Amino acid sequence: MENKSYLIQSNGNGVHHGMLHVGKNGSVNPSDLKTRKPRWNIRPSEMSKNTLNPIRAIVDGMKLTPNPDKPMIALSIGDPTVFGNLPTDDNVLQAMKDAIDSHKYNGYAPSVGYLHSREAVAKFYSRPAAPLEGKAIELAISVLCNPGQNILVPCPGFSLYKTLAVSLGIQVKLYNLLPEKSWEIDLQHLESLIDEKTACLIVNNPSNPCGSVYTKEHLQHILLVASRHCIPILADEIYGDMVFPGCGFHSMAPLSTDVPILSCGGLAKRWLVPGWRMGWILIHDRNQAFGPEIREGLVKLSQRILGPCTIVQGALESILNSTPQEFYCNTVSFLKSNSEICYTALSTIPGLTPVKPSGAMYLMVGIEMEHFPEFQSDVDFTERLVTEQSVFCLPATAFEYPNFFRIVVTVPEHMMVEACSRIREFCNLHYRASSLETNYLDQ
Amino acid sequence: MENKSYLIQSNGNGVHHGMLHVGKNGSVNPSDLKTRKPRWNIRPSEMSKNTLNPIRAIVDGMKLTPNPDKPMIALSIGDPTVFGNLPTDDNVLQAMKDAIDSHKYNGYAPSVGYLHSREAVAKFYSRPAAPLEGKAIELAISVLCNPGQNILVPCPGFSLYKTLAVSLGIQVKLYNLLPEKSWEIDLQHLESLIDEKTACLIVNNPSNPCGSVYTKEHLQHILLVASRHCIPILADEIYGDMVFPGCGFHSMAPLSTDVPILSCGGLAKRWLVPGWRMGWILIHDRNQAFGPEIREGLVKLSQRILGPCTIVQGALESILNSTPQEFYCNTVSFLKSNSEICYTALSTIPGLTPVKPSGAMYLMVGIEMEHFPEFQSDVDFTERLVTEQSVFCLPATAFEYPNFFRIVVTVPEHMMVEACSRIREFCNLHYRASSLETNYLDQ
Ligand SMILES: Cc1ncc(COP(=O)(O)O)c(C=O)c1O
Ligand SMILES: Cc1ncc(COP(=O)(O)O)c(C=O)c1O
Repeated sequence: MENKSYLIQSNGNGVHHGMLHVGKNGSVNPSDLKTRKPRWNIRPSEMSKNTLNPIRAIVDGMKLTPNPDKPMIALSIGDPTVFGNLPTDDNVLQAMKDAIDSHKYNGYAPSVGYLHSREAVAKFYSRPAAPLEGKAIELAISVLCNPGQNILVPCPGFSLYKTLAVSLGIQVKLYNLLPEKSWEIDLQHLESLIDEKTACLIVNNPSNPCGSVYTKEHLQHILLVASRHCIPILADEIYGDMVFPGCGFHSMAPLSTDVPILSCGGLAKRWLVPGWRMGWILIHDRNQAFGPEIREGLVKLSQRILGPCTIVQGALESILNSTPQEFYCNTVSFLKSNSEICYTALSTIPGLTPVKPSGAMYLMVGIEMEHFPEFQSDVDFTERLVTEQSVFCLPATAFEYPNFFRIVVTVPEHMMVEACSRIREFCNLHYRASSLETNYLDQ
Repeated sequence: MENKSYLIQSNGNGVHHGMLHVGKNGSVNPSDLKTRKPRWNIRPSEMSKNTLNPIRAIVDGMKLTPNPDKPMIALSIGDPTVFGNLPTDDNVLQAMKDAIDSHKYNGYAPSVGYLHSREAVAKFYSRPAAPLEGKAIELAISVLCNPGQNILVPCPGFSLYKTLAVSLGIQVKLYNLLPEKSWEIDLQHLESLIDEKTACLIVNNPSNPCGSVYTKEHLQHILLVASRHCIPILADEIYGDMVFPGCGFHSMAPLSTDVPILSCGGLAKRWLVPGWRMGWILIHDRNQAFGPEIREGLVKLSQRILGPCTIVQGALESILNSTPQEFYCNTVSFLKSNSEICYTALSTIPGLTPVKPSGAMYLMVGIEMEHFPEFQSDVDFTERLVTEQSVFCLPATAFEYPNFFRIVVTVPEHMMVEACSRIREFCNLHYRASSLETNYLDQ
């Protein structure tokens, strides 16, 4: 179709350009070109066409007309700022204003970020820091993988990995998480997917959409698999330290003795300012498996992009050092309390099987579809939940995990409570005791 | 070399893996893989290796040891904030603080930017606005071009075009600018480069590194060429309206009756805050040659990136509407005055042929190399200018244009004056009247 314009026009002497010599690869003999009258035939690039956001694809296809009698409660978007109940700390905002007033942060920063800001990150995490980056995950994937290679991605998992990989011509292989084991990785399945084209393993802990937090032991088992096959790990730890009191967070890197790790983090979630676009990559490479080359690759790629807004970079040191411990504690206490309210309520609703989370801002809920014969799918189910109850949850088909939906627990408590009671009403109305009393998870 | 690790190890039973069946394309038979003991062999991606910044490549290779007796004067970096003499307007800074205090701009913005911010840009330019983007030029190139196609890029020209294109597998064809015609485009040369794989023509006006500003007539001639061959234009107008009093700036888009244009702009230069990473693309498409597809492509690509920092987006409306006219006037008056000081001074130095600029922040200076037999090249020349005079100008080899160097005219006036007198001293010392009195430009 790219050559359409060559094929459908004729020139003055009646020679039909459909007869132009078009080579196998669509190339046209330049001497023929002189005679063709060009036409506008501008097509978007393959890369743009290959950039697909599965969440958008699904949500855009849903009929989201809330019940006019009930105000809408959106439990769908992983943005903790939407309701205003979780403001960032005042010190964070003051750090920004100080950076503005200093007049020092208006010019170009080095492409990998200001040295002192990078050092502040390194110190905060007591680990070597690499580029500051508005899009750390893209940078990490792009430096490790070539088109034609593949990456291992959790299922259910955050859709950006796939969006980025596919647009870069990198194949995605999904490894299973086990809901019955608090979403631990199915290590056998993971290992069976590894082949000679596997360029990297993405581990997301704490997890979007699961809210799971891995034990030290499980992380060590994952490292063993990576070590056995010499696959580097991209540890997406954007929710690092957003774990509920009582459940410890272990960062992957300090547990590794040999597996090289790029650990991605940022201000988005823990400091509750996702719009500021400030992330970073911590390079963990105890045995020099990345060596200088991967570092150089990161630096080169960062030159295409030129890092995050300098004001945010200027504020970073103070954001990391002056945010009081209390702020972090309040955030996780709130998340824990809200997710317990939600989990407890949904646990007693027939037909739903919520999986208890330990961190991040999410909760996954299984739908025993056999008890809801009216609905074809989780997309159907959540669509009707909007129409009837004005509660919007993301169908987990968006995470390649049908028959579940994801709830965001950052909403104000009274909305969480109200949403749960509307979900109960909805389920009670549509639940049908099935003849075969099978449990979904035992299937 | 990619398979090095397969080839150099042996396994326990003495079978040398150098005998593994490695296919023509380096692929390994999977059954062989089971027996190999993997090794760490992590290589940076081709894309990262193909990301080359010509300026860095040249500057990193230069010996830049200033004369200890003279303080360094850097006329090399296109960052107007370096010396503090060109602060942005107070209203711009206040707009940022207001955006912070509003608490409204901390969450995720739509991937193409807040609607009201985009509308503010559209209104400011009285043209339809498309995505707000930290990296507008990359977005525009990536939506129009596929790997294997080519783009037409000015020579001398801004190196980012090439860096981006090459990393995306897009070929760059350089069209000549004519110094003797105030850097107008050599239209015949331009036209001769167009072939069936040409995806876009980049026009940079006002120009980095030339400081040239095109007349309405010249822009119309460029449009004619693009129209004749149906090539869309990427108009890099980041220095738009940064023209000296007396020389009008004409944006490309309003002059076009049929050629579709993506016009890139941003806060970086005109508002003197390059670190804030805020740009935009204005879509001009009177005859629907881009149609909805290119727009969709831009939206999709923007989803990979998620736009500029929300605080800057939040401040944008006020930045555009509340910056007093006086601020813009002061900036261009300063630039004009400084560039006249520089041009006038350098015009009287034997061996140098500065080209008078009309806008932006730059000035190109020809070196009559035959009069400087000590130096091999502009790189040599500018390197020695640092060693002897502590004045750093960028050799125009960095813009693929040897025998010239570029001067940035944003430095404080006294430094401009001092730099010119040091350049005079340097040239006087090294100038040799050649036996053949040829003029460089006549060669
Ligand atoms: C698992 C995970 N990683 C990364 C991100 C990206 O964060 P951002 O693009 O805000 O830096 C998110 C955002 O929701 C996420 O859930
Ligand atoms: C011609 C031209 N276009 C675009 C840019 C890019 O500006 P930024 O990356 O700051 O948006 C520059 C910066 O020097 C430039 O000179």
